[in-house]
Amino acid sequence: MEKILQRVIDNNRNLYKYGKVADYIPALKNANIKDCGISIIDKDKNIFSAGDYNKKFTIQSISKIIALMQAILDIGIEEVFKKVGYEGSEKPFNTISYLGENKTEKAINPMINSGAIAITSLIKGEGDEKFNKILNLVRTLASNPNIDYDRDVYISEKNTGDRNRAIAYLMKSKNIIGGDVESILDNYFKQCSINIDTIDLANIGLSIANRFKDIEINADIDKKKISSLLIAIMTHSGMYNFSGQWSVEVGIPSKSGVAGGILSVVPDKYGIGFFGPSLDKNGNSLLGHSVLKELSKELNLNLF
Amino acid sequence: MEKILQRVIDNNRNLYKYGKVADYIPALKNANIKDCGISIIDKDKNIFSAGDYNKKFTIQSISKIIALMQAILDIGIEEVFKKVGYEGSEKPFNTISYLGENKTEKAINPMINSGAIAITSLIKGEGDEKFNKILNLVRTLASNPNIDYDRDVYISEKNTGDRNRAIAYLMKSKNIIGGDVESILDNYFKQCSINIDTIDLANIGLSIANRFKDIEINADIDKKKISSLLIAIMTHSGMYNFSGQWSVEVGIPSKSGVAGGILSVVPDKYGIGFFGPSLDKNGNSLLGHSVLKELSKELNLNLF
Amino acid sequence: MEKILQRVIDNNRNLYKYGKVADYIPALKNANIKDCGISIIDKDKNIFSAGDYNKKFTIQSISKIIALMQAILDIGIEEVFKKVGYEGSEKPFNTISYLGENKTEKAINPMINSGAIAITSLIKGEGDEKFNKILNLVRTLASNPNIDYDRDVYISEKNTGDRNRAIAYLMKSKNIIGGDVESILDNYFKQCSINIDTIDLANIGLSIANRFKDIEINADIDKKKISSLLIAIMTHSGMYNFSGQWSVEVGIPSKSGVAGGILSVVPDKYGIGFFGPSLDKNGNSLLGHSVLKELSKELNLNLF
Amino acid sequence: MEKILQRVIDNNRNLYKYGKVADYIPALKNANIKDCGISIIDKDKNIFSAGDYNKKFTIQSISKIIALMQAILDIGIEEVFKKVGYEGSEKPFNTISYLGENKTEKAINPMINSGAIAITSLIKGEGDEKFNKILNLVRTLASNPNIDYDRDVYISEKNTGDRNRAIAYLMKSKNIIGGDVESILDNYFKQCSINIDTIDLANIGLSIANRFKDIEINADIDKKKISSLLIAIMTHSGMYNFSGQWSVEVGIPSKSGVAGGILSVVPDKYGIGFFGPSLDKNGNSLLGHSVLKELSKELNLNLF
Repeated sequence: MEKILQRVIDNNRNLYKYGKVADYIPALKNANIKDCGISIIDKDKNIFSAGDYNKKFTIQSISKIIALMQAILDIGIEEVFKKVGYEGSEKPFNTISYLGENKTEKAINPMINSGAIAITSLIKGEGDEKFNKILNLVRTLASNPNIDYDRDVYISEKNTGDRNRAIAYLMKSKNIIGGDVESILDNYFKQCSINIDTIDLANIGLSIANRFKDIEINADIDKKKISSLLIAIMTHSGMYNFSGQWSVEVGIPSKSGVAGGILSVVPDKYGIGFFGPSLDKNGNSLLGHSVLKELSKELNLNLF
Repeated sequence: MEKILQRVIDNNRNLYKYGKVADYIPALKNANIKDCGISIIDKDKNIFSAGDYNKKFTIQSISKIIALMQAILDIGIEEVFKKVGYEGSEKPFNTISYLGENKTEKAINPMINSGAIAITSLIKGEGDEKFNKILNLVRTLASNPNIDYDRDVYISEKNTGDRNRAIAYLMKSKNIIGGDVESILDNYFKQCSINIDTIDLANIGLSIANRFKDIEINADIDKKKISSLLIAIMTHSGMYNFSGQWSVEVGIPSKSGVAGGILSVVPDKYGIGFFGPSLDKNGNSLLGHSVLKELSKELNLNLF
Repeated sequence: MEKILQRVIDNNRNLYKYGKVADYIPALKNANIKDCGISIIDKDKNIFSAGDYNKKFTIQSISKIIALMQAILDIGIEEVFKKVGYEGSEKPFNTISYLGENKTEKAINPMINSGAIAITSLIKGEGDEKFNKILNLVRTLASNPNIDYDRDVYISEKNTGDRNRAIAYLMKSKNIIGGDVESILDNYFKQCSINIDTIDLANIGLSIANRFKDIEINADIDKKKISSLLIAIMTHSGMYNFSGQWSVEVGIPSKSGVAGGILSVVPDKYGIGFFGPSLDKNGNSLLGHSVLKELSKELNLNLF
Repeated sequence: MEKILQRVIDNNRNLYKYGKVADYIPALKNANIKDCGISIIDKDKNIFSAGDYNKKFTIQSISKIIALMQAILDIGIEEVFKKVGYEGSEKPFNTISYLGENKTEKAINPMINSGAIAITSLIKGEGDEKFNKILNLVRTLASNPNIDYDRDVYISEKNTGDRNRAIAYLMKSKNIIGGDVESILDNYFKQCSINIDTIDLANIGLSIANRFKDIEINADIDKKKISSLLIAIMTHSGMYNFSGQWSVEVGIPSKSGVAGGILSVVPDKYGIGFFGPSLDKNGNSLLGHSVLKELSKELNLNLF
């Protein structure tokens, strides 16, 4: 397996030059555009890695999956989806215009910024509690109690977050979210700044693929149902407005982050973590697209 | 199996009263709102049916899957997706406003009207040839050479098709489609008027689930790749702007039609055909939603 | 006066190079981009002209004012404005996307394409009758019985009119217009192809400025009210989405056409006709903007 | 004149029941829906009033005209209109969706909320200085040094201003505004809370109608040009998305506020102030519409 991973990475890593790293905050701008690493963990917890698998990066939008799970644990599926929808979208991650229309009463889905901010607002807890719950869930799913957040990235996100601030105030004015907007955003910016590596992501992916079988969950909710929901949502909107094409070309339910990470789940089989900060125009890892496409063919991982 | 089907139908068929039949053309308005039938065919071609499985109805939007397949056979995946996108959408099936924007160069996906009209335009052939190819492919996939179209429905569709006409002319003005608009629409209205029953649909579903293994295909394209693509597209946009919620609640890739039919594919396992003309607000069969949700749980058919 | 006109034209005519002639049909593409002519007629019917005032060009969108007047004469103000609105807009002349939204029941205003096509549909008469009424009204207002339409331009408009066709079918599907779409468009394309010169335009402008005092009108409608309405509509939307800036910088109610013509009305004082086919990015005559801006200052014609 | 005013008010004041008072903050909700007052001041400063002309109300959106003037005095016309457009719009006063689109670089016009917030941000000054300049300009134009703002209304506006907050942050993220958003909004909410009566409004209207001839202006800008600009902008967008119909039916350049006030300008002739808190669906005073329509006809005040 490690040979396959190494070969696929070697076949693709030069494509980095067709993308560029996120540049809206300095911390992300300083990423090494050539980085490319992958980890796969199978059901027996064997870990296979290749490339820059030991590099740390911030989780960014991949936290949206964990926050969604936490909100479901806190208030249940039905209450969560009163505030966000289930649908894929052809719109970019930071879309806001639809929220300005009178009829809108929900964010499109939990994987775009508006939906993710709404999800964070739904997690129970005052002050930093929402964030701490998300951090703890990341640690549990990744089997890594040392995971923490990057204060510099958090401060940068906070200082450049005016569009997210606009999204949050607009949702507040429409009663999609309640409570103190700056505090919700604070929790949101912190959750995006959690530091991880590809092994952490692969472990999280395996927890979902395994239907959380070794995870203790303090809620009366069917574990299989939660994992199926997360996988379905990742399928529909995990790769932003590239999700449809991703399903056709790769066929592995995944969620990407703007720092270059990708969390992938092969149901009942594997968890996969990828890192490559060179981004395509949709904000997904460019190398992640080509590496996972080849790997999916090689290992026959296409779900469809 | 037939007992299960009968039980599930009995459990749900009274819900018909929460929906209503399509009323934009007389032929559809005359459907019996209480009708509810299902057929499942397994890999060994055993057919199980219950309820009103022998009623005929028009294929309507389910033809979009067949037309997409025909266009791929004619000009290949790459050329097809230069004119339509892959994405799910939170917009309704007859959305047009996005096409009016300057930057738009594609229909969102092949499962909404704009994309389906574009797909029909891409099938090679003059006059009725596009339609005849689609009809033949339906017959082949359904193993039923007697399938034909309903002239009354076709005439009605043609007479009330001004919104589709607008969509087509707008795409022509943007070079998304070429050729004679009325002729393309004629083919499109005819393909929507093909008459089928749930066994036909289940056979089509099985052909896809089986990766077309018994189907002869006159093209150099990998059969498995085509079936995966169709299943991925059905997953993302087969149930219009309910597709995400459908994946979460049912988890079986499906395509619905406004006459009440649903084509469902359980990859490598089953083809399913459903008929129930009482529609929900998204234009999907209301009974289809509840029946397939229960059946998915009962038979463990959720893909995610 | 003629000296002033000549000076203003001389001061501005070299600016033609910052614009370009309309190129969507050959007939317009062949216009001489350097042409620049103006005519002013005062209340005593004295005619003052300078530059290329004797060149013929097609009336294009300026016909929208005449068609609006004809529709008001035929069915009254109230009925007309049930199908079109009164508002200015920040959207371009060929905007369509708003019509695709469910709630829309009117075209924004009679000066954009959708509204103008709706207006033409409201004029009473079968076949060419709508057009013939418009042509006759142009002749009457311009005091020139020899005005006719340009068959080549008409044929070209018809052959390239797919976006207008889409607009019309969309309005038909929403019951904003009724009747045969191709016939309505035929009348519309013909009205846009009427051939005129700047003296014709100045005469039309004077008729409006004069409150139609010498014009016989076969209707029970107050002439002053019609002229005020036309002037208000020209003010709000006569120069497309440049109308607001036009009011600030020029302050003379005007209507432009894509062939380079501008009809201007100084209420109770002057009618002005301008011709200069070099267009700015809004589709208005670039020289018309600078010439009328200077002339407005020079002669103190700003209405505000 | 006072007899005419009284008669027009008597003819219309019972129509109050077809509208309703603004209810988004308590202070406005407590207005007396039956109030109806008017003041007209002619060029010789004769004041004519009728009805509830001595009632105080908050200026609300009418302050947008004064703030626009102050911004022009501070940085000039050209700089101001780099951040806001000139156009009328068919969209409501609190429209935001267009700002979410990538290409947008300006607010549509200075009379909708987004544009007005941008205008306030452009006025020079730290802390309360922007507001104080606007307050002083109101006092000067109204010849009333006792005008002040209503602290309760200001606090209410601030507490319910999430949509305006969203608009402001969105503009900040697009570099349409700079500086501290909460401080800009603070100035904006205060300017909306300035307390006035119809005589104050009529005096402001007369100052504009008179081309500011008795007003000392600390800037090198042509007074006539400023007044023409304000009148043109009021014409195009002073009555929100009813501005076009207002021009056709009333024909007097005006600006309304949600507390029920209307500022009207008859160029070179009259200033008019109206108050009637019963609002129509566009957010304009319902009685103001009918009273000014009748008065315009009676006194022949239609500009067009």
